[in-house]
Amino acid sequence: MTSASPSLFDTAADAAREAPFWAASDPATRAGLLQALARVLEQHRDPLVALAHGETHLGSVRLQGELDRTCFQLRAFADFVLAGSLHAVEHDAAVDGPPPRGRPGMHRVRVPLGPVAMFAASNFPFAFSVLGGDTASALAAGCPVVVRAHPAHLQLSRAVFHLVQRVLHEQHLPSGLVGLVDGASVEHGAALVQHPAIQAVAFTGSLRGGLALQALAAQRAVPIPFFGELGSVNPLVVLPAAFSAQAPEALAAQLAASVTLGMGQFCTRPGVVVLVGCEASRRFLAALALHLAEAPAHPMLTPAIADAYLSGAQALRSTAGVGVLLEPSLERMGALLATVPAADFMAREELRHEIFGPAVLAALCEDEQALVPVLQSMAGTLVATLWGAEADAPLARQLVATATARAGRVLFGGVPTGVAVTRAQQHGGPWPSSTQPASTSVGLHACERFLRPVVYQGAPGWLLSGFPSERS
Amino acid sequence: MTSASPSLFDTAADAAREAPFWAASDPATRAGLLQALARVLEQHRDPLVALAHGETHLGSVRLQGELDRTCFQLRAFADFVLAGSLHAVEHDAAVDGPPPRGRPGMHRVRVPLGPVAMFAASNFPFAFSVLGGDTASALAAGCPVVVRAHPAHLQLSRAVFHLVQRVLHEQHLPSGLVGLVDGASVEHGAALVQHPAIQAVAFTGSLRGGLALQALAAQRAVPIPFFGELGSVNPLVVLPAAFSAQAPEALAAQLAASVTLGMGQFCTRPGVVVLVGCEASRRFLAALALHLAEAPAHPMLTPAIADAYLSGAQALRSTAGVGVLLEPSLERMGALLATVPAADFMAREELRHEIFGPAVLAALCEDEQALVPVLQSMAGTLVATLWGAEADAPLARQLVATATARAGRVLFGGVPTGVAVTRAQQHGGPWPSSTQPASTSVGLHACERFLRPVVYQGAPGWLLSGFPSERS
Repeated sequence: MTSASPSLFDTAADAAREAPFWAASDPATRAGLLQALARVLEQHRDPLVALAHGETHLGSVRLQGELDRTCFQLRAFADFVLAGSLHAVEHDAAVDGPPPRGRPGMHRVRVPLGPVAMFAASNFPFAFSVLGGDTASALAAGCPVVVRAHPAHLQLSRAVFHLVQRVLHEQHLPSGLVGLVDGASVEHGAALVQHPAIQAVAFTGSLRGGLALQALAAQRAVPIPFFGELGSVNPLVVLPAAFSAQAPEALAAQLAASVTLGMGQFCTRPGVVVLVGCEASRRFLAALALHLAEAPAHPMLTPAIADAYLSGAQALRSTAGVGVLLEPSLERMGALLATVPAADFMAREELRHEIFGPAVLAALCEDEQALVPVLQSMAGTLVATLWGAEADAPLARQLVATATARAGRVLFGGVPTGVAVTRAQQHGGPWPSSTQPASTSVGLHACERFLRPVVYQGAPGWLLSGFPSERS
Repeated sequence: MTSASPSLFDTAADAAREAPFWAASDPATRAGLLQALARVLEQHRDPLVALAHGETHLGSVRLQGELDRTCFQLRAFADFVLAGSLHAVEHDAAVDGPPPRGRPGMHRVRVPLGPVAMFAASNFPFAFSVLGGDTASALAAGCPVVVRAHPAHLQLSRAVFHLVQRVLHEQHLPSGLVGLVDGASVEHGAALVQHPAIQAVAFTGSLRGGLALQALAAQRAVPIPFFGELGSVNPLVVLPAAFSAQAPEALAAQLAASVTLGMGQFCTRPGVVVLVGCEASRRFLAALALHLAEAPAHPMLTPAIADAYLSGAQALRSTAGVGVLLEPSLERMGALLATVPAADFMAREELRHEIFGPAVLAALCEDEQALVPVLQSMAGTLVATLWGAEADAPLARQLVATATARAGRVLFGGVPTGVAVTRAQQHGGPWPSSTQPASTSVGLHACERFLRPVVYQGAPGWLLSGFPSERS
């Protein structure tokens, strides 16, 4: 943090001071802010993308697309707020007579939790950062936000924050609605989670960092909810039918593009492919190795991420049963492709951990029935992809059930990278992919993380007239 | 546990074995079971109530009413399942074109978490026990239940469990859908929370017990959600206007009945009354002391609860500033009434802890503006009651805002005991009254605790036809 920046304490206190105002704000005010934030990002598109590329190396095409997605998301939350369901009241009319049937009138509303600490992700400098989905959903829900900037794109974070402050000023809204804390140290993040003004945490990052912060959130004098989106292996299960529908080489090209996008630095990148060891699979893997080798490479987000990727690759190559087809080195920072017999994959838990980067491990099964136990051996994941499960068959049903038990999103065909921002989206899966699998950090349900129900029993008329809408 | 009972391990394993079957069951099957469970309770009403009274001393009138409420609740969840919203699918149709607007088709469903460990409460032998709200909502959500019987009413728990097993047999449903574990030791409860088959915990009980079990749930190899409904002080704030609308003596009678109901062993019993020290308040307190002294007393649920109540009363009387108007003793196990100046109440945190039993502490303010800081000094609570806040005035608005920030239910007039089972009900407030304040353990939203969203992207037709209903 520069000496000119306000302290973490001041920033959190500012957010707390504005929380009641923002909780009481009307849909038009909230939506107006979200729309203006989308506009200001678009107005400064080129310099922002240049700044982002300079810090992250992610390239203009990807970053332009990410900025579009971020603006689309801000506007989707604006529309959602205007549609009114966040402010909807659930009403049980009074019923005369003795209980249990007789009852007083009840009005259930949802109230914002208060200031949200938002930990920006390294790998999405726009969409999971200062004006990303967590900030958009928290503001939509009526909560001020204190963003912990990611050290991997600090200049961009400050530039976006500067624009946010300008928009707040233009809209005559208090500057404390969005705060920025950009101390890079671990202690700084810990202090934010422990600050008494903070009422909830939204985190996207590593399993280790997330679990440490979650423990701090639980140990506070008053514990607060911690919504962590952590690591994920995102298995892709290939039924042999997939190779009848599409050539193995075409599917390999599709997968290679997904794995290497942004140097594999995606939480939804498929890290494990489960295949039956047949001729088509061999063609698929050969083509995959070629496409991965040819994919353009660029520096990873931070030296620490690059180091961890290389260490992960090295650990993988020295694991019994693993054969390496392609591997990165200090000189050639590119993709990793390895294979392992399914039996070894199931026997060695360390093979089922995420390697963050453009890495794929192919687990080879003796027959298609073995696909199920391999998937069963895997932990919770953000997304599981099934290829060739389109036809109704017992094995497809079994794989869907197994994937459903392990993932927040189950994908039929295609690749899991690129998470659509829709109402129904679910980006959060069973542990360890997220700390609260019933919540999502993408899609309109993301707002629910920051709301708590309150029921008014026998509420007077003046209170009821304050509810923006009512359904019964 | 009797030596003839199945082991905890077997019971949890049975539940896990039946989980996929029950998750896939249709609404008619689930509702049919819930309705049959209500019927069997009613058919055995008199012997069950006699058994319950013998173990809990709660009296036939209260227990008959509690049985009615339990049956009403089972049927309410049956109706809810039949109405279909639990199985509803949220559908985002595919949109052509590039992202972010273009998107694949998405179908969002909610899937049951799996076996739920349910810790029965001491104070509701029917409504928060073997067939109580947690069991009803978990079964409705599609989860098997393993009930940890409360030692305070073990015979009743076994009798109800025997009836449950009969109903399951008659409905040709597997016996493992509802299990009973009745070991009384703390270790037994801990082992249940730690059992790998258990996927969520619903707990009603003490703060200390709840926090210990919650820590175990978080420390598992795969952590699971812990829904604890813990202690609560349930403040009642009396604006002077209340005494203009109703005579202080009438209001005192109403409060005394609420405080002494079931020997004060209610999680929603008002434990603190905040008043302005005026003449009407003095009349109110004098009448309250009389009514409390005259209230019929009966033994408390367990010797340990009686001991804790007497210790709490003794600690209160020895706290500086506290004046005791009425107190219990080993010889006269009745109500406790004490007063304290608001300044002392705010200065001493220990005065704001729950005393489980028929206890009321009156905090006396110098003027009505002081009501707000007294309420602000209090921690999260299941319910906050406001008397005299019916007219629209700045103080009433301030008190409603303060109560809303601290409670899951805000009540205007009347008494907080007697929680109506309605769709909109919210029984769960900010910490420490519950561990997950966004959830409720009463009302139809209680099912949500045991469900997790999954989105299917590009789902094939055969999967879609399996969804019972669809909205878009």
